[in-house]
Amino acid sequence: MGGSGIDPESERDRLVRTAMRMIEERGDEVTRTALAAGAGVPRARIEALFPEETDLFDAIVERWFVDHVAIMEDVLASDLPPNRKMYEFFVRRFRLQRERFRADPAAFKVYCELGAAHFERVRSYVDLADHYLCELIAQAQAEGAFEGLAIDDALSLINQMVLPYTMADVLTYMEPRLSEEKLAKIVDTLFAGLSAVDGGARGIKGLRAA
Amino acid sequence: MGGSGIDPESERDRLVRTAMRMIEERGDEVTRTALAAGAGVPRARIEALFPEETDLFDAIVERWFVDHVAIMEDVLASDLPPNRKMYEFFVRRFRLQRERFRADPAAFKVYCELGAAHFERVRSYVDLADHYLCELIAQAQAEGAFEGLAIDDALSLINQMVLPYTMADVLTYMEPRLSEEKLAKIVDTLFAGLSAVDGGARGIKGLRAA
Repeated sequence: MGGSGIDPESERDRLVRTAMRMIEERGDEVTRTALAAGAGVPRARIEALFPEETDLFDAIVERWFVDHVAIMEDVLASDLPPNRKMYEFFVRRFRLQRERFRADPAAFKVYCELGAAHFERVRSYVDLADHYLCELIAQAQAEGAFEGLAIDDALSLINQMVLPYTMADVLTYMEPRLSEEKLAKIVDTLFAGLSAVDGGARGIKGLRAA
Repeated sequence: MGGSGIDPESERDRLVRTAMRMIEERGDEVTRTALAAGAGVPRARIEALFPEETDLFDAIVERWFVDHVAIMEDVLASDLPPNRKMYEFFVRRFRLQRERFRADPAAFKVYCELGAAHFERVRSYVDLADHYLCELIAQAQAEGAFEGLAIDDALSLINQMVLPYTMADVLTYMEPRLSEEKLAKIVDTLFAGLSAVDGGARGIKGLRAA
């Protein structure tokens, strides 16, 4: 085996990459047993690197999101005005996802399905994005945007209005209709129009108050 | 067979209902052959009522959307102000979908999957909704909303920002986070903030112009 000379971190990385290649080829998730066979590595070695089945899955998810996290951190650390920051926060991750989708639509779809089926393993990344978005909202509110809205309400409404640009699987059925221009228009609309003011669309409240 | 006394229209309706019950029970689509067996009706009779396999599928889709179409027509015919009309246009169909989802989440998911897999059979209903929404946008623009935007651009942006409330399968993964209140807030945001004005989120244009 000559294992003493192997850096376990890079060996682990290499195996994660192999597992991802296998997922993309097979269109289905890859167990530690399958990875051992596919990579020609003893099952015991795989188990030393990934003690639980979920450790392999989590390592794949981590690799998928590492660039997303870097983008969010970069944007948060920038000194752009709040509307520019929010656009970059969404558009850079959208471009990354679109690039991956275009590179291999079938593989991308498999990852979407795996992510949906094991959402509990992905949740911490969604929570992290929410955490950063709350910071952006607070910065925007300090400059007068989203007036009167509780941060959690603004968070939920913004997440819903930009959903086509964050929910990866939307790319699989409407990629040609998603664009940077439209996303910018949506962010502009949020900054120009989202507040606690009741514009009357629902009507009922106004009638009851009368 | 004693077929002379049977109203072919209601017999057809009854068979569509049977096919839908079978879809809900099996979690998969139902062919004419399966329907003949399941309903205890001769295959020749099924073929007389549904000459092509797609005729059965189309009849199911029609039944699924008939209430949606009625809602859109009612709202369009009402004399509410544009923002109230647009809210009702979306919220009434959202409530209908949520009711169906809550009544049987598993069956609802099956219909979502069938609709996605055979999107070409559903497209005419999406096109009809777009047609009605364009009418609503034109009415709203006549009263000063969405200033300067081409109708098609407004259509695409509005469809994207309300997507969680129209795309049925979003209910299957985030129903607790969707509400009438939030949809009203989104419509208020559209009427307060969506226009051709460049608010600067994208930034690049402003820099180039400088």
